[in-house]
Amino acid sequence: MEISDIFLNTALNDPKLEVMNFLNEIALNFPDAISFAPGRPPDQFFDIESTEDAIMEYSRYLARHSPNSWNIATLGQYSRTNGLICELICELIRNDEGIYCKPEDIIVSVGAQEALVLCLQAFCGRPNEVVLTIDPAYAGLSGAAVFLGVEIAGVPSGSGGIELVELEAIVNTLHGQGKRPKLLYLSSDFANPSGMTMSMTTRIELLKLAARLDLMIIEDAVYNYFCYEAEKLPTLKSLPGGERVIFISSFSKTIYPGLRVGFAVVDQMVTHEDRSPTPLSYELSKFKSMISVNTSSISQAIVGGILIANNNSLKRYVANRVARLRTARNAMAMALRNAFPAERTVTWSIPSGGFFLPMKLPKPLDKESLRTCAQRYGVIWTPMSYFLLSNAPSADIRLSFSYPEPETITEGIGRLSAWIRDL
Amino acid sequence: MEISDIFLNTALNDPKLEVMNFLNEIALNFPDAISFAPGRPPDQFFDIESTEDAIMEYSRYLARHSPNSWNIATLGQYSRTNGLICELICELIRNDEGIYCKPEDIIVSVGAQEALVLCLQAFCGRPNEVVLTIDPAYAGLSGAAVFLGVEIAGVPSGSGGIELVELEAIVNTLHGQGKRPKLLYLSSDFANPSGMTMSMTTRIELLKLAARLDLMIIEDAVYNYFCYEAEKLPTLKSLPGGERVIFISSFSKTIYPGLRVGFAVVDQMVTHEDRSPTPLSYELSKFKSMISVNTSSISQAIVGGILIANNNSLKRYVANRVARLRTARNAMAMALRNAFPAERTVTWSIPSGGFFLPMKLPKPLDKESLRTCAQRYGVIWTPMSYFLLSNAPSADIRLSFSYPEPETITEGIGRLSAWIRDL
Repeated sequence: MEISDIFLNTALNDPKLEVMNFLNEIALNFPDAISFAPGRPPDQFFDIESTEDAIMEYSRYLARHSPNSWNIATLGQYSRTNGLICELICELIRNDEGIYCKPEDIIVSVGAQEALVLCLQAFCGRPNEVVLTIDPAYAGLSGAAVFLGVEIAGVPSGSGGIELVELEAIVNTLHGQGKRPKLLYLSSDFANPSGMTMSMTTRIELLKLAARLDLMIIEDAVYNYFCYEAEKLPTLKSLPGGERVIFISSFSKTIYPGLRVGFAVVDQMVTHEDRSPTPLSYELSKFKSMISVNTSSISQAIVGGILIANNNSLKRYVANRVARLRTARNAMAMALRNAFPAERTVTWSIPSGGFFLPMKLPKPLDKESLRTCAQRYGVIWTPMSYFLLSNAPSADIRLSFSYPEPETITEGIGRLSAWIRDL
Repeated sequence: MEISDIFLNTALNDPKLEVMNFLNEIALNFPDAISFAPGRPPDQFFDIESTEDAIMEYSRYLARHSPNSWNIATLGQYSRTNGLICELICELIRNDEGIYCKPEDIIVSVGAQEALVLCLQAFCGRPNEVVLTIDPAYAGLSGAAVFLGVEIAGVPSGSGGIELVELEAIVNTLHGQGKRPKLLYLSSDFANPSGMTMSMTTRIELLKLAARLDLMIIEDAVYNYFCYEAEKLPTLKSLPGGERVIFISSFSKTIYPGLRVGFAVVDQMVTHEDRSPTPLSYELSKFKSMISVNTSSISQAIVGGILIANNNSLKRYVANRVARLRTARNAMAMALRNAFPAERTVTWSIPSGGFFLPMKLPKPLDKESLRTCAQRYGVIWTPMSYFLLSNAPSADIRLSFSYPEPETITEGIGRLSAWIRDL
């Protein structure tokens, strides 16, 4: 049967919706190319063989905690909407992120992505409600906004991680247009796609400004463990003023993405005119129950077992991947220095953590640039235009160093520099 | 921090959003009551211990099919948006449902629920676009409509499964109001909550009428394996005219719900004015990539392993649960006959399959009825008002016989009849 596209939601024509599929599938289309495109964690650290051990570890924990009602089969059953492993995650973020909350404040989500969808629809579900994001933006945030029909506005990052003067001006302009900016989405550390980290001063000032502008903040912390310098700055959530922050993270980078387990820390209360206050986490669970019903209990058990076996800290568990990615980042930095020793028309910045290195080329790229580079030079990357809210041509690209081996990175940067020189 | 509810999406105040949480949590609130409330599959058939075996079975299959690129760690990686096990599901529905499609027509979703969300937002994402459903409606459909802000309209089921004359009248009325009814959601077999099955004549006539009214149909088939009579009727999707049907199902009832794996068969093409046609399954993948990114590859591997081990048919795999549920249904039917031998003010109908038996009590229930019955009589059930689009008081209740042991069912119906007599 044929259906005309005019019968369908026009949002489906928005190119922002194709970025995730692009990232999931580009490497399959060019299997021989060296890929700096998707931000995949390196899979040699995934311990799929220990799945059963992790499930059993979690089962034993549950048997100790609720010996009368526990039975392994209940792991397969429908379960609590907001999740089974909230206590363990609560201890994890206390230990690793300095965030103190109650287990009831945690929502276990289908990756960080579902948590974004919940927040966008809860805070920006009405016409004229706007989500703000650093521009270039995480593709999952702008795509979720397109999916839900939520208006999105960009704020430049500048050198401190976000331009606060611009943020205030944009909020005022939106108010002047009868719009209601309500949420600000960002990553304080090692952002995707820019690699940026927010300075300490900016963190403190941002929280004050958000209170003044009555903005809720979503702090996406999925790269937080991947810090390659001596010390990571504290999360927004853990700082004074952090009560207006919803902290979102995921086990996709620390354990593995195939689990599809993320979480949100939602410790705000909702007041009602006609009844007593309810936890915001409960309000969001109503939406979650209509998207995923609940997060896979098998996936939660695998995460739970790994958390228990690691005393609710993942710092040691991820130490070998962090070391590997630090080496990878250093290899990419050195290869770039060697490839462009005195070039002034090609610039890049070295991130202090995360998966991504942003690079500016001598001239704006067109639609064919990536295909040409992949086919003739054997290397792929992501055009920064995929992440810019404007869809304007851009001379910037995102290089991901998270997946290839360090020696492959050196080879890949060699191929990339050959292409750039021929541009 | 306190947030006023007027700052949030007003949809969060809709009681339709609380039904899933109610069903997930009611049994926890009354642990000593006999529960006829949620439609849970009986968990003694869940084979959690064989999780690793199933993953390994699927891994060996992949190793045979793509020996060069296969590596078990890739099971943990981000994967194809529309799923990994589409070929296996394609064979499954050919064998068990008589549905012929291509693997590319399958979307593996986070339960059937995510597939509903995708379809609602793709077909009814604009103001005035309406989804139709049999009323009383599946709570996940009406809740998803509330979550997305999609208007919903009910059609009575009548004796044939859906009142076709009423359906046409409702569609015409909506058109007269400037609205666009676009989707019709239903279960042809053993519907939740009514237990209804659609007659063969109605199936054939419905497909003709849907073509005339230009309605797409979502056929939710999650209870299809649970047929307690000699022969199940063919699905709408497999009949002439089935090309306008999107077939949705799930492994929650046949394997276990904790996997959160369902699927949709989407074999329509989308035409565009300015470019060549695209598969509707691809268009929907753009939305899916912004909700769940992809369905858990570990959960897909468990399903895949079980399908391979069962030659892509689940009929034998579920035979023992079907037998158990047939016994449970019969036990409930007999207990009801014994409890109300000559009563004319209490009526019920015996479903030919599925998990649910609908019952009409002598008078409409109020908000306290369920709590009273749970606390004083030790039995819980679901008010049919939770599923009715009008939220009007109703004398109907839904009894689920899927979870308790048959002897517990007899005891539970005894308690229920004591409460009804005291009403």
